[in-house]
Amino acid sequence: MKKYKEFIAIKDFTASAIACGIKKGSNKKDMCLIYSEKPAHAAGVFTRNTVKAAPVKLSMNNISSGHIRAILANSGNANACTGEQGMDDATSMISIVSEALGIRNTEVLAASTGVIGVPLPIDRIISKINPMVENLEACKFKDAAEAIMTTDTFKKEVSVDFMLGGKKVTISGMAKGSGMIHPDMGTMLSFILTDAEIENELLKKALIECTDVSFNMISVDGDTSTNDTAIILANGGAKNKPITIEGPNYYIFKEALKIVCIELAMLIAKDGEGASKLIEVNLTGGFSQDASNKLAKAIISSNLVKAAFFGNDANWGRIICAMGYSGKNFNAEKMDLIFEGGGKKISLVENGKGLSFDEAAADEILKNETVTIHVRLNDGSFSAKAWGCDLSYDYVRINGDYRS
Amino acid sequence: MKKYKEFIAIKDFTASAIACGIKKGSNKKDMCLIYSEKPAHAAGVFTRNTVKAAPVKLSMNNISSGHIRAILANSGNANACTGEQGMDDATSMISIVSEALGIRNTEVLAASTGVIGVPLPIDRIISKINPMVENLEACKFKDAAEAIMTTDTFKKEVSVDFMLGGKKVTISGMAKGSGMIHPDMGTMLSFILTDAEIENELLKKALIECTDVSFNMISVDGDTSTNDTAIILANGGAKNKPITIEGPNYYIFKEALKIVCIELAMLIAKDGEGASKLIEVNLTGGFSQDASNKLAKAIISSNLVKAAFFGNDANWGRIICAMGYSGKNFNAEKMDLIFEGGGKKISLVENGKGLSFDEAAADEILKNETVTIHVRLNDGSFSAKAWGCDLSYDYVRINGDYRS
Repeated sequence: MKKYKEFIAIKDFTASAIACGIKKGSNKKDMCLIYSEKPAHAAGVFTRNTVKAAPVKLSMNNISSGHIRAILANSGNANACTGEQGMDDATSMISIVSEALGIRNTEVLAASTGVIGVPLPIDRIISKINPMVENLEACKFKDAAEAIMTTDTFKKEVSVDFMLGGKKVTISGMAKGSGMIHPDMGTMLSFILTDAEIENELLKKALIECTDVSFNMISVDGDTSTNDTAIILANGGAKNKPITIEGPNYYIFKEALKIVCIELAMLIAKDGEGASKLIEVNLTGGFSQDASNKLAKAIISSNLVKAAFFGNDANWGRIICAMGYSGKNFNAEKMDLIFEGGGKKISLVENGKGLSFDEAAADEILKNETVTIHVRLNDGSFSAKAWGCDLSYDYVRINGDYRS
Repeated sequence: MKKYKEFIAIKDFTASAIACGIKKGSNKKDMCLIYSEKPAHAAGVFTRNTVKAAPVKLSMNNISSGHIRAILANSGNANACTGEQGMDDATSMISIVSEALGIRNTEVLAASTGVIGVPLPIDRIISKINPMVENLEACKFKDAAEAIMTTDTFKKEVSVDFMLGGKKVTISGMAKGSGMIHPDMGTMLSFILTDAEIENELLKKALIECTDVSFNMISVDGDTSTNDTAIILANGGAKNKPITIEGPNYYIFKEALKIVCIELAMLIAKDGEGASKLIEVNLTGGFSQDASNKLAKAIISSNLVKAAFFGNDANWGRIICAMGYSGKNFNAEKMDLIFEGGGKKISLVENGKGLSFDEAAADEILKNETVTIHVRLNDGSFSAKAWGCDLSYDYVRINGDYRS
């Protein structure tokens, strides 16, 4: 299994991106189209926020058939809290796309991200759909990954390839962050393509299971978006023996998909709004999976933990405090706490007792771009990983004036 | 019923405060004692964080008798996550206090606030207890309110007096904030005294009910502390006919206590770490009390809402988004949203539809020290109020380097 830090094109999938002025006063690409030249199996997970954006509702409906040919996405406007007008706009967008591509309306998914509560500049969008369709190319996935960015500072792409019954299979994914990130059964936007031949139900099962250990284990700011969407399309181009049962090939496929999802999730956390570092929690020895997940996620969601990391302050008490209000029990008297960064480690708590430690050495570790908090509960055999970022001045700056 | 913005002394209660160097490198008062010259009925609510500080465990135990004579409190160190040593320290502190006062160990409560995971400088504390006891005076409640401050920028005091069966009764309270504030059945520290004569069970019931609409409805940063404690002592000095049933006198008392608790809670929110303004949510028309509370609290807990308020950005979509992930349903298509500040109002959403609004007028409203978000759900008859503050650069600065 080999991992690449870019989106590797997959046969029979093409993409296109364009600037249509949805983002205020900029010529940045803000709309993209992903197209599957042949029908693809499709699965998606969507936000559990009860306020769902129009494109989310529409996509949830269309994906239920399991057969999708195209994804239309825009940044700069979430088309959420826009009432009937929002749903009308989303519907017209996809009908124009389906007409231009000669496919059915119900074979198109829509995804939007950006400001909430403002109607889309629908005329401008519609006028750009045909040019976008005409420019579909296999080499344009990078442009698409760029077009879904909002406050992201870099594109998020990853690919994995591996052998499945003698055939090479590729899974390629892109995602965008970077604020309003506290996914609940979805993420902000993530589009994953594969040439694997796999049944719809298994594709969906794999996506849900991988989402639980990736996108659902990150948090930037505790705010679960109205627009979280993760979609996978599988067009079967690899001509592997179809995956129809939960056997070895399914597990290989799921393992590869997990790598893609975790890598994208980590990139989203690393590029959290204003973030100066990626915080990884590596929790082991939990007494149940659910408790391990919730304890790990409570740590990376705590504003106080995040602010301390911004200041390189080894204020470990806040970590234990966050675990204490996670809603899950644990034995604080048995736990160990270790920070790791730049290849160095420092023990802060052993058997629940705070150790005296070298502040300068802790500072050196905390200054790294990636810092891991190892939490050993010594209470069972379950483990969980979660990813977040620090809380910085820039987070406040970015979100104090997002709309202008 | 009359409200005062200071802590009015109550007969037979005295206080004392002292600087004993718990707060690093400062001569600030950091320890205080509150004493009831006669036995007082007592009730308390404490954090639901499963990691409880030693003084919280000790106080929960001692208060169960319902009879308390003294409260010993310190700031600068939370005595949390300090293991057996922490419990030993808390126990020695209260035994020295009880000896000096000639009362029983079990008649003393302890409360600590400050950094987690560091042992108390117990020798310095013990050496200052006798001088503190010798200086107990009725006029020193202001000093006590000062001694419990950590990152607070002002003292939080309030009193209410009212007639109960022909006798004047006073309730006076103090509290401290201002970070790690997301109380769950308690608050940071709040000490409330009254000369009312009221049975223990009813005192407890009143405190719990008032906590639910005050301390439990504020959030500064979503972090529920290990040390949250709200205590009320009632010494009966007012000589009112004892409150022994849930009749009119109980309701008058509870109403007055509610005023004190809400005022203290609002002061805590207003003085949230780094806050430049108080945000009040006034939610009406909810279909249940529980849903109304959770929806209101989700709004003031959202980092994105808070950052937008810091930037005076009327980004109302984030408010509806936060309600959407509160875990409670509501009908977004029926709601109205109005901002109010400085005596002016502006409508942003009506029947779920975003209105075009004057950005300059919204900016004027958002610039005020107190801004109210009116949420009308038009879906029932329940209402809830919640209080929070904006998320500013200073919150990050204060918490990026709290320990030094």
